[in-house]
Amino acid sequence: MPVLRSIRERLAREHPLDGLRVGACLHVTAETACLAHALVAGGADVALAAANPLTTQDEVVAALSAEGCAVHGRRGEDADAYAAGVIAVVDGAPQVTLDDGADLLTVLHSARPQLLDGLVGGTEETTTGLLRLRALEAEGRLVCPVIAVNEARTERLFNDHYGTGQSTLDGILRATNLLLAGKTLVVLGYGFTGKGVALRARGAGAQVIVCEIDPMRALEARMEGFEVMPALEAAGRGDIFVTVTGNRDVLSRSHFDRMKDGAVLANAGHFDVEIDLAALSAAAVEEPRDVLPLVTQFELGDRRLNLLASGRVVNLAAGQGHPAAVMDMSFANQVLAVEHLVSARLGPGVHPVPEAVDREVARLKLASLGVEIDSLSDEQAAYLRGWLA
Amino acid sequence: MPVLRSIRERLAREHPLDGLRVGACLHVTAETACLAHALVAGGADVALAAANPLTTQDEVVAALSAEGCAVHGRRGEDADAYAAGVIAVVDGAPQVTLDDGADLLTVLHSARPQLLDGLVGGTEETTTGLLRLRALEAEGRLVCPVIAVNEARTERLFNDHYGTGQSTLDGILRATNLLLAGKTLVVLGYGFTGKGVALRARGAGAQVIVCEIDPMRALEARMEGFEVMPALEAAGRGDIFVTVTGNRDVLSRSHFDRMKDGAVLANAGHFDVEIDLAALSAAAVEEPRDVLPLVTQFELGDRRLNLLASGRVVNLAAGQGHPAAVMDMSFANQVLAVEHLVSARLGPGVHPVPEAVDREVARLKLASLGVEIDSLSDEQAAYLRGWLA
Amino acid sequence: MPVLRSIRERLAREHPLDGLRVGACLHVTAETACLAHALVAGGADVALAAANPLTTQDEVVAALSAEGCAVHGRRGEDADAYAAGVIAVVDGAPQVTLDDGADLLTVLHSARPQLLDGLVGGTEETTTGLLRLRALEAEGRLVCPVIAVNEARTERLFNDHYGTGQSTLDGILRATNLLLAGKTLVVLGYGFTGKGVALRARGAGAQVIVCEIDPMRALEARMEGFEVMPALEAAGRGDIFVTVTGNRDVLSRSHFDRMKDGAVLANAGHFDVEIDLAALSAAAVEEPRDVLPLVTQFELGDRRLNLLASGRVVNLAAGQGHPAAVMDMSFANQVLAVEHLVSARLGPGVHPVPEAVDREVARLKLASLGVEIDSLSDEQAAYLRGWLA
Amino acid sequence: MPVLRSIRERLAREHPLDGLRVGACLHVTAETACLAHALVAGGADVALAAANPLTTQDEVVAALSAEGCAVHGRRGEDADAYAAGVIAVVDGAPQVTLDDGADLLTVLHSARPQLLDGLVGGTEETTTGLLRLRALEAEGRLVCPVIAVNEARTERLFNDHYGTGQSTLDGILRATNLLLAGKTLVVLGYGFTGKGVALRARGAGAQVIVCEIDPMRALEARMEGFEVMPALEAAGRGDIFVTVTGNRDVLSRSHFDRMKDGAVLANAGHFDVEIDLAALSAAAVEEPRDVLPLVTQFELGDRRLNLLASGRVVNLAAGQGHPAAVMDMSFANQVLAVEHLVSARLGPGVHPVPEAVDREVARLKLASLGVEIDSLSDEQAAYLRGWLA
Repeated sequence: MPVLRSIRERLAREHPLDGLRVGACLHVTAETACLAHALVAGGADVALAAANPLTTQDEVVAALSAEGCAVHGRRGEDADAYAAGVIAVVDGAPQVTLDDGADLLTVLHSARPQLLDGLVGGTEETTTGLLRLRALEAEGRLVCPVIAVNEARTERLFNDHYGTGQSTLDGILRATNLLLAGKTLVVLGYGFTGKGVALRARGAGAQVIVCEIDPMRALEARMEGFEVMPALEAAGRGDIFVTVTGNRDVLSRSHFDRMKDGAVLANAGHFDVEIDLAALSAAAVEEPRDVLPLVTQFELGDRRLNLLASGRVVNLAAGQGHPAAVMDMSFANQVLAVEHLVSARLGPGVHPVPEAVDREVARLKLASLGVEIDSLSDEQAAYLRGWLA
Repeated sequence: MPVLRSIRERLAREHPLDGLRVGACLHVTAETACLAHALVAGGADVALAAANPLTTQDEVVAALSAEGCAVHGRRGEDADAYAAGVIAVVDGAPQVTLDDGADLLTVLHSARPQLLDGLVGGTEETTTGLLRLRALEAEGRLVCPVIAVNEARTERLFNDHYGTGQSTLDGILRATNLLLAGKTLVVLGYGFTGKGVALRARGAGAQVIVCEIDPMRALEARMEGFEVMPALEAAGRGDIFVTVTGNRDVLSRSHFDRMKDGAVLANAGHFDVEIDLAALSAAAVEEPRDVLPLVTQFELGDRRLNLLASGRVVNLAAGQGHPAAVMDMSFANQVLAVEHLVSARLGPGVHPVPEAVDREVARLKLASLGVEIDSLSDEQAAYLRGWLA
Repeated sequence: MPVLRSIRERLAREHPLDGLRVGACLHVTAETACLAHALVAGGADVALAAANPLTTQDEVVAALSAEGCAVHGRRGEDADAYAAGVIAVVDGAPQVTLDDGADLLTVLHSARPQLLDGLVGGTEETTTGLLRLRALEAEGRLVCPVIAVNEARTERLFNDHYGTGQSTLDGILRATNLLLAGKTLVVLGYGFTGKGVALRARGAGAQVIVCEIDPMRALEARMEGFEVMPALEAAGRGDIFVTVTGNRDVLSRSHFDRMKDGAVLANAGHFDVEIDLAALSAAAVEEPRDVLPLVTQFELGDRRLNLLASGRVVNLAAGQGHPAAVMDMSFANQVLAVEHLVSARLGPGVHPVPEAVDREVARLKLASLGVEIDSLSDEQAAYLRGWLA
Repeated sequence: MPVLRSIRERLAREHPLDGLRVGACLHVTAETACLAHALVAGGADVALAAANPLTTQDEVVAALSAEGCAVHGRRGEDADAYAAGVIAVVDGAPQVTLDDGADLLTVLHSARPQLLDGLVGGTEETTTGLLRLRALEAEGRLVCPVIAVNEARTERLFNDHYGTGQSTLDGILRATNLLLAGKTLVVLGYGFTGKGVALRARGAGAQVIVCEIDPMRALEARMEGFEVMPALEAAGRGDIFVTVTGNRDVLSRSHFDRMKDGAVLANAGHFDVEIDLAALSAAAVEEPRDVLPLVTQFELGDRRLNLLASGRVVNLAAGQGHPAAVMDMSFANQVLAVEHLVSARLGPGVHPVPEAVDREVARLKLASLGVEIDSLSDEQAAYLRGWLA
């Protein structure tokens, strides 16, 4: 994680976070430890609760604890232990929060309002968390600034477009060992992630069909050279289907009824609702069976459909999740967002990652790649300003 | 121009512009006639001044005049005649203006303030015009709403990315008849247009190097698989150079000194300032000579550099300019922007094209292509709303 | 033409063709003059007849004559003058012939058998010429070796794949100024040239459909990610059709009947037989009209079809033909083939360009591009030989 | 394996192999069982020896034995048992052999010459086996025809180009979980497989550099838009290196000395000689350590290099090997080659797979994909023949 490392090195020199109480509720992994190290290097005191007992790495808990962070969490702990961890971090009266689902800020607003006064602000890493916080804001109850880290441009570029684009295909290949060249792959949803999946599928030799509900995205797909058509029409054409819409029942009974024998169904969206699993089971004439570890086959009488990873998000369920390069960008945005909260004193509300932070993360990433770029000469800068004179 | 045609057909049925006085200052071409027809079909009275005497098509002037539009302009008319045309349109007390460089609105604000009262608003088609209008707004003097048509997403997609991307290469090929496969093409500037040029150059088999001053754009280029480096380093690598930055002296003496024998220099930016022509002439050891109609060769002693179209924007100067499909999108946005100005009664200031207009243009374009897309079921719409409940 | 130039420089040093009588029947253009110069530099005496009166450049005739070549031809000369030129070259008793359609060798075999004794061999540049010569060979009558220059790998790569691939699209754009992005382009025929057209069309943002009669080529297209289907089915899908099969009536009445309004028909094959022009005229309900200089529109009642360049080969008829880089490779193969004929003393029959010649042309081209490559170490060479030990 | 299945169904109807004794020495896997079934369906008696004790699937042995095939092999059996299996198959006096390394034919020629009389011919699946058989042929000792199945065009297309292209990247991703977008990947060797790796790496967003020793291949790579340079120069540029040359020491000490910190080294060639492992160990200043299950890190003092899968072929060692679609094409060629041997009665020597077989495999594959293609009309066929008239 070279970007985070270079930020840590600067923070260690500048100590811009001296004495700052940071409370975090994140997945406790090796990457998160690097994030904590950077904050500590900058002078912060860090308390950490595990965002999910299933992802907690106990050796990371031990190591961070040994270094003086207050870490609450144990792999497989129960819901009460988890809730106690969140409360413990909140009761440390954090000045800045780092959330992965808005738990710290929600608890602060609802159960510990007396601690809100000392709050400088928070960051949020997930779409789900942002939905909760924006609902709070819409009700006029959000009292602090929150920076929407997962909407940073560098984050979207690495996480959604390139990261998930690559890892979704990777998950499909690990589950099936199919040859993508010559296959027809249908991408349902052409948002940031869907674009990444479509791009990579074409790069792997597949013929790609895009289905959309938004005319602007549909037109973008068409102009990019993809075939665009309604999902019902695509149902009869595809060898592989990938849902990535954020919506439910994107593939349902009417689609299953038109699919070819051997079609593969994968979901790249966050929740396992995009493929209508109940309808799929109902369509089957016998009990589904696992033909490979991550492939469940549904016998429809005249055809068989193959569901990957039970319809759960295929890049995580069948692959290794995000490359470290992706987390590097996320956590770099996190740390710089904390620094920005401290220096900028924003008003209450959900704020975007400042363009300057985004650009700084990009700059550091380029430096880590050894890529140099140009800068404006004085004459050129003056020329640009000239327009406004 | 199928999108504009379908809008015209609807306007002819609905007459939403009945009695509206529209004043336009645009290039008087066959495409502009279609735009005027659509406005007239909607019930508007249209007065038109020619935005540039060099592009005026006299037969279009005649035809529109015969149809009852007041058209001012003649190919090759002098500056006085041009100015008189603008004044004539302004003096018609337009309720909505269509500008291609902000002339109508500038004259209205400066020379005919008494007519501002009746003004509903205007549209602007160019970056230059927007710079002028935004300067006016910054001074607190802009009294009407202006819609920035050239910043619509559909406009950028067709005009900048795909349109100029294709036509820039087309201009280079017409001027040189070079084989692009196997060549190294350097794109200086990775904005909307630069991305289009880079994409198309790669699609034509060239190896593409990108130069940028913005780290975010540079990172995007790198992640897209392009090589990114400073222009001075690229100078020694390129066979073909394309400037598309909006800035001056992007290629200058230090670059010329490192270029290979036979290198080709083309500009895809609006003004002919991006290649430092004075420095190029100064570097030459003898008088430049035209080796092909659009290729001027500069003998540097040990090497020769080939400048295309005197450094003027190569897609227009060496090619045919934009395909009709591009103008179709621009003018569709124009007409819908006029309709929006009338119905929405916006406050003073430069406004973006509303997303609904952009989406409607996309929808009509898809329809003209025969592309159908999906729509949300009630259950799916409810599911999306559910997040906010 | 850097490859030909480097060959000429070597020939000028080595004089391997000293005193050799070379007779050529080629298009008399500036490029051909470079070819003649290379042969003369190597010591040959060159006599040249114009292969086609329409392509003869009189200033090249004059210049070559002034340099001592015997050149027969004048732009626009009649058939008798043309035939006299061929006879004149033949009567010079050439030891090596360079043909562009097999005229010299055919005349030698039929009308001047007494001169065959002195013949070392010939080269042939065209498919048509090779068909004639192979027919002669099949009858057991071909008495000399002929090298099939147009089947060299470097020739096919530059001429068919990259050269015609690029120039075909270029011709279509010059004729129509269409935006290719978002269009569906149907390529009929997936040979060397068809592959090039399909690749470049995809690179320009089009969605590409391939039609074929050969299962192997069809499978290659499919594995490359193209959609493959029968032409009748593609007829209803395409916006642009490009024939490149070498066969007749590839697009005929049944296809026209299914095409969309505004469909564009272009031929990239050698002869204007691939689009059934008689059927197209018969389908029209009124006289065809030229809507643009190179676009003839056929009104079919409910739809209009647009034929480019009267169905003649579109890259030549609507574009500038081959880039110089392509001719450079062809003529480099020509000269090295002459050298090979002299040194190798082949038996009668049509021979491929020796792999060593092909590789040498590739090597010189790389050198002209400034590209360096690796060579085997002694240990590596030994390792490879080891397999056979 | 739909292609093999459709062949089996035809053979079951036609019985062209009635009573034919087929001896095979192949990997005993589920796919091989399908091959055996097809031969048996055609009327053959099949005896099978396991080509490699490590790949033998005992349940397949059991199943085939139960069906009446004589199968010799057991997972993990020793060399004597293996040799005994080969002898047993040979002693069954096969009329046709199927080899995966030339063991059956070598034993027949050397140890059982008396059985050669009854031999109709054999097929060979591997490059290694062909080298042995061609050496035998060069010595004038090969007494039967052998068909080189692995040189079929369909085989190369699926196996080398698309199969290994995809699975090599897949192996690298499984070993490292790297994000390929934005990385520089160096492909050493641009043969069938190297082209596939380069194509797929570019499709995954990497910037690709190609190193070659052959000018023709180097030129092809350059014309395809790849950067081409000597390996020593590429050494300092690459993030990931993939060797696929068939030669030894392609990456050696001089390259390691220039590589960047963190560079990844993978081999996609058959043998683990392409990366000079001894030199890599010698360059390390401490004991190499496994940082991930398939990643060994070499500390060079100032930099670390990461070797994948101990330099063994990365698509097999770190991935799942070939998709079933690839084996389907191989075994389809095998069965049709057996049929051809029986019907065509070829002379001794190594023969290519007949074009008709290749085309038939392509045809069946297209059918299995549901792809239809065109056929020549009588008029078109006559037109083509006309050239020769």
